[in-house]
Amino acid sequence: MKSVDLEFFFKPKSVAVVGASPKRGSIGGEIFRSLLSSGFKGKIYPVNPKYESIEGVKCYSRISEIPEPLDLVVLAVHPSLIPEIVEECGLKSVKGVVVVSGGFKEASEEGRSLEEEMVRKAKKYGIRVIGPNCIGVFDGKSRIDTFFQSYDRMVRPGPGDVAFLTQSGTYGCTMLEWLAEEGIGVSKFVSYGNASDVDEADLVEYLGGDSETRVIGVYLESVKNGKKFLKVAKKVSKIKPIVLFKSGRTLQGVKAALSHTGNLAGDYRIVLGALKQARVVVVDSIVELLDTIKAFKYFPKSSRGRIAMVTNGAGPCVVASDVVEELGLEMASYTRETVKELEENLPPYAQIGNPVDLTGSATTRDFIVAGEILLKDPRVDIVGFFFVFQDTPLEDDIVDELPKLKKYKKPIFAVAAGGPYTKSQCRKLSERGVPVFETSERAVKALYNFLKYYESLSVKNPLKHL
Amino acid sequence: MKSVDLEFFFKPKSVAVVGASPKRGSIGGEIFRSLLSSGFKGKIYPVNPKYESIEGVKCYSRISEIPEPLDLVVLAVHPSLIPEIVEECGLKSVKGVVVVSGGFKEASEEGRSLEEEMVRKAKKYGIRVIGPNCIGVFDGKSRIDTFFQSYDRMVRPGPGDVAFLTQSGTYGCTMLEWLAEEGIGVSKFVSYGNASDVDEADLVEYLGGDSETRVIGVYLESVKNGKKFLKVAKKVSKIKPIVLFKSGRTLQGVKAALSHTGNLAGDYRIVLGALKQARVVVVDSIVELLDTIKAFKYFPKSSRGRIAMVTNGAGPCVVASDVVEELGLEMASYTRETVKELEENLPPYAQIGNPVDLTGSATTRDFIVAGEILLKDPRVDIVGFFFVFQDTPLEDDIVDELPKLKKYKKPIFAVAAGGPYTKSQCRKLSERGVPVFETSERAVKALYNFLKYYESLSVKNPLKHL
Repeated sequence: MKSVDLEFFFKPKSVAVVGASPKRGSIGGEIFRSLLSSGFKGKIYPVNPKYESIEGVKCYSRISEIPEPLDLVVLAVHPSLIPEIVEECGLKSVKGVVVVSGGFKEASEEGRSLEEEMVRKAKKYGIRVIGPNCIGVFDGKSRIDTFFQSYDRMVRPGPGDVAFLTQSGTYGCTMLEWLAEEGIGVSKFVSYGNASDVDEADLVEYLGGDSETRVIGVYLESVKNGKKFLKVAKKVSKIKPIVLFKSGRTLQGVKAALSHTGNLAGDYRIVLGALKQARVVVVDSIVELLDTIKAFKYFPKSSRGRIAMVTNGAGPCVVASDVVEELGLEMASYTRETVKELEENLPPYAQIGNPVDLTGSATTRDFIVAGEILLKDPRVDIVGFFFVFQDTPLEDDIVDELPKLKKYKKPIFAVAAGGPYTKSQCRKLSERGVPVFETSERAVKALYNFLKYYESLSVKNPLKHL
Repeated sequence: MKSVDLEFFFKPKSVAVVGASPKRGSIGGEIFRSLLSSGFKGKIYPVNPKYESIEGVKCYSRISEIPEPLDLVVLAVHPSLIPEIVEECGLKSVKGVVVVSGGFKEASEEGRSLEEEMVRKAKKYGIRVIGPNCIGVFDGKSRIDTFFQSYDRMVRPGPGDVAFLTQSGTYGCTMLEWLAEEGIGVSKFVSYGNASDVDEADLVEYLGGDSETRVIGVYLESVKNGKKFLKVAKKVSKIKPIVLFKSGRTLQGVKAALSHTGNLAGDYRIVLGALKQARVVVVDSIVELLDTIKAFKYFPKSSRGRIAMVTNGAGPCVVASDVVEELGLEMASYTRETVKELEENLPPYAQIGNPVDLTGSATTRDFIVAGEILLKDPRVDIVGFFFVFQDTPLEDDIVDELPKLKKYKKPIFAVAAGGPYTKSQCRKLSERGVPVFETSERAVKALYNFLKYYESLSVKNPLKHL
């Protein structure tokens, strides 16, 4: 797929931070320090007329003074100064500008004029602009990092194949830390705020052609150009899943969105219908967005959804069974051979059914034996393992053994919730390629979204299907 | 309120563990070690004919050999042995028995007979039975602790005023660790499994009269005696809130519930209607159960719901505004004086509206100034603080200053999500009396449940109202 060129935002050879400062808590200062801490290998230039050097790096008074070529400029100064600096960037052949500062069209009429002026100047020189009113870009591999969130306050994920686009910097921070917590790596991240120039459509198109990206997550409040976005989404969703959460569903939400990024959210139901027709996987919360990304990241492609469950504590399986039925998915019924094999190979305390309830006495061996028998059954498409890691009979090594069941090439997942020990077991499973969900509802909903996407890929009119 | 006497389960002077063992991973052994680790001050007797002593404590061959009186006996042995041991407990004037073992009516017809025989023997001697097929009891103050989940795998909460009853041991473990994680203490906890004798109605009645308990959380799959439960719930819900999550809503769920605890879940819609008429706060997930408990624990009583929001990152406020409208709650509109005061006292980057958007440049002072002005406004009933703790301009001391706003005697809450730094800030707020929710949806839903309860208390027919 031919793609819009935004590569210089993610793999710049050099970057300047205008508004850099030695002061803790100053936006430009924190961005500059993030770049120094991130592992970014390109050149980094602080720009601020007030300082000779910052953190031991020579500081420049203005962009034009920097002696070498510049790919990217990050701006964290008063909005009134920005159009002029963009002009200067143009004269220096800068390719991209990230405007972190707020105070533009989200704030006032005056801000709206400033934003328009800034975009006019950028267009004149062929500069692309991300922002304003955003936290900018991050690349898990190149380590470009324009965040004013310091490293001691915000953990960054490693490199990986998940991309995330967000109109809200806050949800950006949350998602990055959630992904990092589960050991999931990120290809590209963009918080684009007011979307004055580069918008969600440009970004989705770029990511569609990006070989480092396999799943695209999006948080939207408004769509800048609906037709353009749908056209792009339709094209990209054939190649890789786009998982999208849209807020601004109600009048109050639309009002809040308008003062957030100065953009008007359209009628939710109309937007929703159009998105589904473009095979976009629409989710209802930021949590479901994370969960669905995980399903796409970890599961082998599948549109068949007969689920079997194995557990050492069946409460959450009762809840999962409810959600399976409510969403119209299917509980697997086993072949006669499977039932016989389970009976012969599991201890007498095990209850053979769906779920297979191994009870609180379950060991690692019990889980693996049950899992293997179920995964070999042609009537079972997916196996969910519902763990009480707190139960002492279950050995620590379950997290070493379970990931081996991936060899059956069917989706497997785990559900578990609890304190430090449980969290550490979950993290290990996740790092070894088994997605873990905190609750039954979250697991089954993610699975549903995953299955429906692959189902929709095989039909002409996906709307009817979703 | 006169109450059923179950005190001996929670404040026993002495307890024996039948099936105790030195083996790691043995159910009885782990229960015995939990009691030794928990801080329980009563006498603890291990019972097992195979050992002279366990963990340095003299071990007895049978209950009848124990020389002193016994209040409570915990059983973790093969089900076939249990009726006889209960008989022995009767001869020893034991008051209560907790049967942790499974293999009763949830497992087979033979198990069902065993369970009936056990209950007959207990009734003969006036012994009350909790279980079988459960993890038993915990008391935050007396530290009675019958869990086979070891201390290195499961954190226990401290003492407090939240009680939790659960048919599922798994959800019990999860809830205890979630509460502990937020620093919320527990008065009484019961996992009652098959409910062979003591059932949810007995327990709710007991907790209704328990001065240590202020909020009762319940996870149910089936109701043993619907009429009895509703009668008790109606009485207790006038005094303290009962927050309840019921699974087994669908045919698949009912099937799973039956093999879980051997009890049949009734038609969900009928149960739901009856529960609401009894002013039980019915929630849709274990997560919502936790959140709603928190609202009741932390908020001063209120049925007025005009919400104002303050934030340094407005994305989650857009989502919260959506949920406020969808649930029929109300966004506060401020008095003219409030707007003027906000404009005069906040920095120029702040956007005055609902939410008050302090932007990423916000400091602790900005949050506190905005919070105080809003809390003084007679048109504002509740203030939600939506934090991006990752934003470096916001000082660490926000968690010291925010709890001071409780002096205005209106509900305040926080929303924040992220990694280690954010979690540590959230924990501090929670310990200082401000509930924190991970997402907007969770916060607004908990608030809704809280408000509706106090609204229902003031009307004759609560069903019409909920």
